[in-house]
Amino acid sequence: MHAIIHTDASSPSSLEWQTTEAPCITNGEALVELHYAGLNRADTLQAQGHYPPPQGCTDILGLEASGVVKEANGATKPDGSPWNNGDEVAVLLSGGGYAQYAAVPHGQLMPIPEGYSLAQAASIVEVACTVWSNIMMTARVNEGDLVLFHGGGGGIGIFGIQLAKALGARVAVTAGSAEKLATCKKYGADILINYKEQDFAKIIAAEGGADVILDIIGAKYLDANISSLAKDGHMVIIGMQGGVKGELNIGKLLSKRGTISATGLRYRDVDDKARIVKATIENVWPLLADGTITHHIDRIVPITDAAAAHEALLNGEVTGKVVFDIPRPHAE
Amino acid sequence: MHAIIHTDASSPSSLEWQTTEAPCITNGEALVELHYAGLNRADTLQAQGHYPPPQGCTDILGLEASGVVKEANGATKPDGSPWNNGDEVAVLLSGGGYAQYAAVPHGQLMPIPEGYSLAQAASIVEVACTVWSNIMMTARVNEGDLVLFHGGGGGIGIFGIQLAKALGARVAVTAGSAEKLATCKKYGADILINYKEQDFAKIIAAEGGADVILDIIGAKYLDANISSLAKDGHMVIIGMQGGVKGELNIGKLLSKRGTISATGLRYRDVDDKARIVKATIENVWPLLADGTITHHIDRIVPITDAAAAHEALLNGEVTGKVVFDIPRPHAE
Ligand SMILES: NC(=O)c1ccc[n+]([C@@H]2O[C@H](COP(=O)([O-])OP(=O)(O)OC[C@H]3O[C@@H](n4cnc5c(N)ncnc54)[C@H](OP(=O)(O)O)[C@@H]3O)[C@@H](O)[C@H]2O)c1
Ligand SMILES: NC(=O)c1ccc[n+]([C@@H]2O[C@H](COP(=O)([O-])OP(=O)(O)OC[C@H]3O[C@@H](n4cnc5c(N)ncnc54)[C@H](OP(=O)(O)O)[C@@H]3O)[C@@H](O)[C@H]2O)c1
Repeated sequence: MHAIIHTDASSPSSLEWQTTEAPCITNGEALVELHYAGLNRADTLQAQGHYPPPQGCTDILGLEASGVVKEANGATKPDGSPWNNGDEVAVLLSGGGYAQYAAVPHGQLMPIPEGYSLAQAASIVEVACTVWSNIMMTARVNEGDLVLFHGGGGGIGIFGIQLAKALGARVAVTAGSAEKLATCKKYGADILINYKEQDFAKIIAAEGGADVILDIIGAKYLDANISSLAKDGHMVIIGMQGGVKGELNIGKLLSKRGTISATGLRYRDVDDKARIVKATIENVWPLLADGTITHHIDRIVPITDAAAAHEALLNGEVTGKVVFDIPRPHAE
Repeated sequence: MHAIIHTDASSPSSLEWQTTEAPCITNGEALVELHYAGLNRADTLQAQGHYPPPQGCTDILGLEASGVVKEANGATKPDGSPWNNGDEVAVLLSGGGYAQYAAVPHGQLMPIPEGYSLAQAASIVEVACTVWSNIMMTARVNEGDLVLFHGGGGGIGIFGIQLAKALGARVAVTAGSAEKLATCKKYGADILINYKEQDFAKIIAAEGGADVILDIIGAKYLDANISSLAKDGHMVIIGMQGGVKGELNIGKLLSKRGTISATGLRYRDVDDKARIVKATIENVWPLLADGTITHHIDRIVPITDAAAAHEALLNGEVTGKVVFDIPRPHAE
């Protein structure tokens, strides 16, 4: 098969479309022919050498994709009915999405959301599983809660705003520009905070505190996030764009009876991923099908242009999802 | 009525048995005549001015007690049957236990565990509600988990060891002396760590990591606790004997997908307390009744000697619970 090969570990842009060995499936895996793959910021980190694949996983990039089942190999859907060869699927991957074939653990096969194209489906998997698992399975958003998303104008944020609103929450966001805040507002955010001009902790505290915070900044926001928590509030850190080590005021956390979790999707084991995928299909897919949550693709580009797409993302030229179009093997 | 009055705020030992106004009950409260009260380390902190009672609460000391219902005022047990005047009860309090009467929110009345004396019952409430709520309602111990208790030889630790063993967990403890570790072993602890001589994080990591940690040290142990966590582990901080502010390595926490909570029982609202009390009666009381968990009283002293008892506790002269005997009002 063909795949994007990272030919020079020292150069993040050495991403070449080359022949390589197709994956072999084992018990518990299906073989999927991939037609589209989503681009994630994590892919750019991996290309820079910062985000190694889990042990035993291919080092081909790509955390989400869509395509057609080639060998179902006994896989069944969460509802117990069988996956068949030829079925269209979206897939959550630990790596290997930038390729013509992937070996996919049975629990990570997902139906295409009703009314979605394969390109749309390929680019919603990672964000949907990430946000659902963090705000509903790690923390738990209840109706009437205040939920704070940092980076409301990013991929996680835009999805998160819509999901939290669908769950009956009030939503606050931070972003760095009036344009991004306007986007957040369009998707339903109630409280808009420009982090470059305003003190988010003060604003959130005045609103009674956030019951759930989804944080992508880490150390730099640690203390202000705790100040922002409501009683019994839960913050979940999924990114460390603002550093890794910060001072924790345990007394302040205790005065809120607060909880801090830090999570990642990629390194979870297959059972854990299957649990998350199942919950996402059950709870999020209907909200995609009925349009409660909308999903914006910025551009679809040939996967042979992966290097340029990475650069565009890193240069801030992208406002929605970038999707890679993968040539069919028989058409090569 | 009589109660222990803290006559001089600047002197922790100015604890005098004096007349004061009896509490008035409101809707949702029962009046209880108290016969025994448990002594907690928190009482000594409050006497030192460090642990103020929640707003609206009496400033009389005492977080747990037992006695007889004087005015049930419509209170019903968790099973729906009514509390009657004359019933013996144990009570969880936000304060006011060092007195002849207390106004007790209905949800904080507990039956006397089968086979328990009133003195035993008075001194098990705080530790039982604290440990159950933290290791089962905030974190969640599953069969086969490894649970680490710091201060295994203390009141929380000895109770925690027995409860966690009853839940099917393996138990590790830290303590500062061979004697205390022998006590921990007697109560069922599997892994005994002398924190003065050994590196607990190293030992716990070699055992596969702790799924749940109940911490009473705070800042000083923050990083070593995170190093000790198993994947998806949860540490709950309930004490800060080792300081309030510590450096949090978020990257390390994320690599464990770890969770840190910090909680306290006293400042929870009545609904929250009622929820905890109900769960404790349902889950812990049977383990007291059948002897799975044993409870050791160090001494029962007249409440008029409260000041001396505080001193004994602070001087480390106490190895189990101190219980105050409260003179009946009609016998004065
Ligand atoms: N742990 C996991 O499983 C997992 C999974 C997926 C994603 N993630 C992480 O989640 C983060 C967000 O992902 P994404 O796909 O949404 O990325 P994205 O689309 O690039 O969005 C990131 C957003 O962060 C905002 N931002 C930057 N600095 C900020 C600050 N100081 N305060 C508030 N916002 C700030 C940026 O907005 P402005 O331009 O307005 O500053 C940008 O919109 C990334 O760090 C990613 O690695 C983690
Ligand atoms: N947040 C809440 O709701 C709540 C409720 C109840 C209790 N608490 C807190 O929980 C803590 C324990 O309560 P307790 O009643 O069990 O007190 P305790 O009976 O005095 O026990 C404390 C134990 O801590 C041990 N210890 C001291 N330094 C240590 C260290 N560096 N490493 C490991 N162990 C150490 C002592 O043992 P050695 O002599 O062997 O050092 C002692 O046995 C207290 O801080 C209390 O305030 C909190």
